[in-house]
Amino acid sequence: MRLPTIYFCIIERFESLLEPEREPCGWRYAVLNKTVIDHLRQKVGAGNVYHEREDLLVYGYDATPEIAGFPDVAVFPENREGLQAALEVSRREGLAVTPRGAATGLSGGSTPFQGGMVLGLTRMNRIREIDEENLTLTAEAGVITVDLFNAAAAKGLFYPPDPGSQNVSTLGGNVAENAGGLRGLKYGVTRNYVMALSGFLYDGTEFHAGNKCVKDVAGYSLRDLLVGSEGTLGIITEVTVRLINPPQDKRTLLAYFRDIRTAGEAVSKIIAARIIPATLEIMDKTTINCVEDYAGIGLPRDMGALLLIEVDGHPAVVAEEAEGVRKILEEVRADVIRQAANAEEAAQLAAARRTALSAVARVSPTTILEDATVPRSRLAETFAEIERLKEKYGIRVATFGHAGDGNLHPTAVTDERNREEVARVHAFFSDLYEKVLSMGGTVSGEHGIGIAKKGYLLRQFGEGGIGVMRRIKHAFDPDGRLNPGKIFLDEGIPAGSKIPGETNG
Amino acid sequence: MRLPTIYFCIIERFESLLEPEREPCGWRYAVLNKTVIDHLRQKVGAGNVYHEREDLLVYGYDATPEIAGFPDVAVFPENREGLQAALEVSRREGLAVTPRGAATGLSGGSTPFQGGMVLGLTRMNRIREIDEENLTLTAEAGVITVDLFNAAAAKGLFYPPDPGSQNVSTLGGNVAENAGGLRGLKYGVTRNYVMALSGFLYDGTEFHAGNKCVKDVAGYSLRDLLVGSEGTLGIITEVTVRLINPPQDKRTLLAYFRDIRTAGEAVSKIIAARIIPATLEIMDKTTINCVEDYAGIGLPRDMGALLLIEVDGHPAVVAEEAEGVRKILEEVRADVIRQAANAEEAAQLAAARRTALSAVARVSPTTILEDATVPRSRLAETFAEIERLKEKYGIRVATFGHAGDGNLHPTAVTDERNREEVARVHAFFSDLYEKVLSMGGTVSGEHGIGIAKKGYLLRQFGEGGIGVMRRIKHAFDPDGRLNPGKIFLDEGIPAGSKIPGETNG
Repeated sequence: MRLPTIYFCIIERFESLLEPEREPCGWRYAVLNKTVIDHLRQKVGAGNVYHEREDLLVYGYDATPEIAGFPDVAVFPENREGLQAALEVSRREGLAVTPRGAATGLSGGSTPFQGGMVLGLTRMNRIREIDEENLTLTAEAGVITVDLFNAAAAKGLFYPPDPGSQNVSTLGGNVAENAGGLRGLKYGVTRNYVMALSGFLYDGTEFHAGNKCVKDVAGYSLRDLLVGSEGTLGIITEVTVRLINPPQDKRTLLAYFRDIRTAGEAVSKIIAARIIPATLEIMDKTTINCVEDYAGIGLPRDMGALLLIEVDGHPAVVAEEAEGVRKILEEVRADVIRQAANAEEAAQLAAARRTALSAVARVSPTTILEDATVPRSRLAETFAEIERLKEKYGIRVATFGHAGDGNLHPTAVTDERNREEVARVHAFFSDLYEKVLSMGGTVSGEHGIGIAKKGYLLRQFGEGGIGVMRRIKHAFDPDGRLNPGKIFLDEGIPAGSKIPGETNG
Repeated sequence: MRLPTIYFCIIERFESLLEPEREPCGWRYAVLNKTVIDHLRQKVGAGNVYHEREDLLVYGYDATPEIAGFPDVAVFPENREGLQAALEVSRREGLAVTPRGAATGLSGGSTPFQGGMVLGLTRMNRIREIDEENLTLTAEAGVITVDLFNAAAAKGLFYPPDPGSQNVSTLGGNVAENAGGLRGLKYGVTRNYVMALSGFLYDGTEFHAGNKCVKDVAGYSLRDLLVGSEGTLGIITEVTVRLINPPQDKRTLLAYFRDIRTAGEAVSKIIAARIIPATLEIMDKTTINCVEDYAGIGLPRDMGALLLIEVDGHPAVVAEEAEGVRKILEEVRADVIRQAANAEEAAQLAAARRTALSAVARVSPTTILEDATVPRSRLAETFAEIERLKEKYGIRVATFGHAGDGNLHPTAVTDERNREEVARVHAFFSDLYEKVLSMGGTVSGEHGIGIAKKGYLLRQFGEGGIGVMRRIKHAFDPDGRLNPGKIFLDEGIPAGSKIPGETNG
């Protein structure tokens, strides 16, 4: 497998970090007392503690451009006891703790923005149990999403959430961000599969939320509050997910459109016809061309948009739904309608869609990918607004995403060294989110707020809504030591930092 | 329609309340200042404010035995402005506020345990919008569940949650309790359909949580925290729910068993065969006989248990699943297997199941209904434990419920004037919950904690878990004026009150 280009970009940026004058964050690397390090090595295992500057470099970043921190120490416990010991040291030394899965996040949520301890969960990655009677799977937080999927599949069961990063992302990270994926339209997102969570608060309190019961209304749903809390409320160490029956059959359709608005119209009509495909993905012309440059699978470079549609389920349902979709595509006059000849071609098409971000990332040194989400009926309007704003600000934007969910990833291709262009990119997104919010949309469909979207979140909720969230944060972590600097705009921002979305309006 | 007996029981108890020496709670009815009442009548409408003792009697209860409060005033705003005015008066006068829907709750959640203001939502009952493009419905909190269902059905859409009380219960109450229902197994509970919520905190802050986007990870999910929060965090005034396509076809099967454990085994085998019926309900012998006394539809009085099974969806799926279910019923040697001849007979059978609580309630003055829920694989074991404990404590218990969800309603038939027998009933439930928790179950599947289960909740979560919930409560309602005395054991209990589950263990 070729290493996706985005990783090369990150590596380049790591190298730049070695030049001290380019230190990307306002916090200084603090050399921890040797006794503390020795204690951590003894409790967590010598090979699981990193404290040298060169080792720590890689734990300052996630997959989000323009955002980085620098930890004082990175600890990777192999079990609960190690994790408890690491937390105890953090409390004693007053260290901030930033939980970290595979760090594929796109909003800066796992960057150690205030230094302190990076607490990696990737070495707690055992699958504890597959319960075939209750149709559940229990695993430690560090298990890789696709490993979980495969373990379920080996028992003839199906775990639907499939974030783009599933080959590297972890279950704990998926839960912390409430990750979506290509199958979200029909099957829902990570939240819809989490039955139980265990873990620890910063103060060491162990929590167990949820259970294997399919119905549970005992007290406030801590489980549902922790899902999507971006590691700011508690550290999730173990998760029980619900599994379902795999679909018996699947059919993949591909439609090309000269005009992206027609593609948007097709999506709205499919939903309004009450057909819910498993997958209903879109790529615009720029994305099609990037993917074609990258993967060379014969996509038509002159088309304005492409829809990838998968219907699945019982063979009778699949046949009817595929026919219904085809009829709508004909009605709106899609330029080309194709059906994947076989499972292999279908898999190739889905894989092509999954490479979209990597393919776009090859075009320029920096890709700023956003996560604008609208009610599905407003999709065509959103495409039109993206086109208008792209021209207004004179920037290059590739758009792809989960059209059926109204969840788009307009992705600006730029160069973060060109500050003037980057400023135009942020102005573009700022205007776009204004429109998204005016249509009843949300500033994040599946990537979370992290650092990248703190300004936008304030616009969405206002001071009143943010105030309630801040008090919830306080209820879990009164001293604000767990993943500090995330979600809340005025919390622990190093002087001189620029938060997207903060200006304007 | 005959008035279910349970309402007669409540009316009898209202009458007893008129005898002052039998005042059921420790709080005294306070006569509010005439100026305050006049102000409320002016702001909310003269016909929407009740303050005479005789008028207030009916607002002290819900459908839970042994639990009652007495409000100082009951206010039924017709719109947001009226509600805001009522809240303002509460704050000025320092009144507790207890939100109230149809008060069909079974854990005492809507009883005004500390007096103060009952804030009825039943006159805010408009359906605001059915959005056929986004498949959503937006309504005020007071809309009756079945009215919402019918409004969706009129547009060819389907709102699945169907709590037993759907003909009287309100949407707001369903959301506050995260109500389940007979279709929960396949379609999920209220939580799975709530897309957005609006309302007010006690301090008057307006909140809007969620939207019409099918994916949303912007900040903590206040929506998911408010669902099931039993009116203790905020007052929900408007809700947007997701609608789906109605099933095209349905088939209803009925199976009788001499032995209830075999029925439990059949349920486990159906789930393990990965067939998920829409409905998979159980009634034990006592319930069968009560329902037969009440409805006279020809149920066999000598059988140990009955399973009511509905499979629905695409006709091809229905045919296969019905066949699969029948095969399992034959394998476990069900004594009788029947298929409903037509839609009318199927509806009659479902209606019979819905009368279970009313039918059982006719047997004795007091019915204490519980809500024990276990992982589905532990169902047979739970039935055995109920049988064992019933004999140990020498009490009469009818058991029915949502077997497919592992959610049972063992219902003790007793007389609250017989304190000794009632004590045995509570000891029975206390032992049963001990077992339920040891099997990884929960003390409430769909009825909430309210007052009735505060002691059991503490057992389930321990002080640590309860502590986090209490801090969340504080984040929303720092002075504890919104629906006080619920969920948390030591909060505002009138002296001498007895909380089930508190003793033992």
